[in-house]
Amino acid sequence: MEFRLIAQDGRARRGSLRLAHGSVETPAFMPVGTAATVKGLLPDELRQAQTQIVLANTYHLWLRPGRQILIEAGGLHRFMGWDGPILTDSGGFQVFSLQSRRRLDDDGVTFRSHLDGSEHRFTPESVTAFQEALGVDIAMVLDVCVKLPATFDELESAVRRTSTWAARSAAAHTNESTALFAIVQGGLNEGLRELSAAQLVALDLPGYAIGGLSVGETRQEMYATAALTAAQLPIDKPRYLMGVGTVADLLEAIDCGIDMFDCVYPTRCGRNGRAMTRGGDLAIRNAAFTHDYSPLDPGCDCLVCTRFTRAYLAHLFRANEMLGPRLLSYHNIYLLNALMRDAREAIAAGRWPALRDRLLPAR
Amino acid sequence: MEFRLIAQDGRARRGSLRLAHGSVETPAFMPVGTAATVKGLLPDELRQAQTQIVLANTYHLWLRPGRQILIEAGGLHRFMGWDGPILTDSGGFQVFSLQSRRRLDDDGVTFRSHLDGSEHRFTPESVTAFQEALGVDIAMVLDVCVKLPATFDELESAVRRTSTWAARSAAAHTNESTALFAIVQGGLNEGLRELSAAQLVALDLPGYAIGGLSVGETRQEMYATAALTAAQLPIDKPRYLMGVGTVADLLEAIDCGIDMFDCVYPTRCGRNGRAMTRGGDLAIRNAAFTHDYSPLDPGCDCLVCTRFTRAYLAHLFRANEMLGPRLLSYHNIYLLNALMRDAREAIAAGRWPALRDRLLPAR
Repeated sequence: MEFRLIAQDGRARRGSLRLAHGSVETPAFMPVGTAATVKGLLPDELRQAQTQIVLANTYHLWLRPGRQILIEAGGLHRFMGWDGPILTDSGGFQVFSLQSRRRLDDDGVTFRSHLDGSEHRFTPESVTAFQEALGVDIAMVLDVCVKLPATFDELESAVRRTSTWAARSAAAHTNESTALFAIVQGGLNEGLRELSAAQLVALDLPGYAIGGLSVGETRQEMYATAALTAAQLPIDKPRYLMGVGTVADLLEAIDCGIDMFDCVYPTRCGRNGRAMTRGGDLAIRNAAFTHDYSPLDPGCDCLVCTRFTRAYLAHLFRANEMLGPRLLSYHNIYLLNALMRDAREAIAAGRWPALRDRLLPAR
Repeated sequence: MEFRLIAQDGRARRGSLRLAHGSVETPAFMPVGTAATVKGLLPDELRQAQTQIVLANTYHLWLRPGRQILIEAGGLHRFMGWDGPILTDSGGFQVFSLQSRRRLDDDGVTFRSHLDGSEHRFTPESVTAFQEALGVDIAMVLDVCVKLPATFDELESAVRRTSTWAARSAAAHTNESTALFAIVQGGLNEGLRELSAAQLVALDLPGYAIGGLSVGETRQEMYATAALTAAQLPIDKPRYLMGVGTVADLLEAIDCGIDMFDCVYPTRCGRNGRAMTRGGDLAIRNAAFTHDYSPLDPGCDCLVCTRFTRAYLAHLFRANEMLGPRLLSYHNIYLLNALMRDAREAIAAGRWPALRDRLLPAR
């Protein structure tokens, strides 16, 4: 893996990441393909929507279809028919969301599947090996993710384990074509964020994520913590803010110096009839749209906006037609990818503040 | 509208239909887009799957989105983004399926919407006007469809009303770019089928459908009735067997001299994990497919069969991922369109019996 910082405008960064399956120009948004599919969309459509890299979830793939099938299929890329870069999360976030169904110890975490109750165990080593076996471009270390609000002791313990586990993941890492990223924890505590970042930076991994955010705190708290954490990270390595994906959050996070993002927001909204636009979200089921023969987002040149009307999309959702979720998911991903492209161009041209201020007028 | 009979091989026919929005080479299968969408698929994909003409349902469109929106949108083609030929059924089949929710008289039929219980009325004139207003290429007359088994009196009464209504539909028809087809009824009764066909043929309409089949009778009864009815129809006009869409039924019906077909079978099967192949259907959820890395149908060159494995498709259905229904629906439509193309080539080349006997070995 190779990361090149091409330009900076304030704290905003324009970079380029070379991975085993292709390049990713940053800032970049990663659509979420939890179960080896970005819900409802073909790999060709992800490309067409300017997607550069897809995220998939270790927790879900581990349980279904499971390691054996993914290996027999020739890896995750071949299994799902996407030949571009893939990042897998480590499953830490999902496992720690299971609450009563998991048991944490210093060595790892034992949990019960949400599908069938079967018992499984994640260790830093097993999770690294799983992601390498899948042949992904970027693997994430197993981290301990704490739900907010949390006590100092809970956060401090999570930081300590996350650092130890990151070191063990790095030691277990063998596949050169899979880059291993660490995940900074520490909740909203400045000192713990600095400690976590320092300990992980000392491991000299190729990239760093900011975890434990977008989990219940306010947006201002999230931005502040993202900014102070980003400032602790090496300038020459990519920075990934996990779980962020609204238009406003992406713009704020880019402004904090973040390079990569993932979120289920565009696809989940799309399935539920919520269309994203640069000017805010639209609930397509609203009565106002049933007779509206204009495009979803007049400023968008995606296939949905160039070929279909709001009235047709409203009809599809009212009739529970599966084409509706598919079209809105496509549009929402296209919109975020276009937003990232606009951000890259603005940063490179030194006009990032103008773009940011135009799109975040209420800031 | 213009129909040209290009070749015959036994009773099987190879024809060409020129319609307002393009040509349809026959035999042709029409995928069903009930609510102005072939479930889960884009118009571009229908084309890519070699679809020539799409069917939509008057009953459903009348209720939702309704006449006003369809007209404001510029017609059904523009509303749904499909610029090829469209045939709409008359709603007769759906209304007569409502049983207790409808009241038939000589002038028309009053029914309650399955969506909200609101009362509506279909007459031959209103249904013809609705389809013309939508700008479809082929409109069907309002017919009286009887569920089998039925008494002679029920069938005779349905034939009588269907003929009267067809004459009224023809008199009400004004839009030259919409061709009006009549529908032969008569159940399994040979005399009534002959009577119905004779009365409708006397109206000299541009095409004729065979209705009231695929409604509970055996396959042998259906084939026999389709054959004897087809024999009563003009040789120089297209013949459309309504509601037929399995591989075996299509081959048998082509062999009876039918030119056009529609059925929800390929898309409904696709949504439910049933893949059609020339050798029979596959239930993709079967345990046998979870580790099967071969294509769905090795003889098929569609995008699903060339890019994805049975194991991946099985995974999508097990994980309830919407890409699964979408991909199987696409494949099933592609398969039927390819089967129709093979039939057209075989009939034109005088080798229809060989194709038929190869694909229907158990006949």
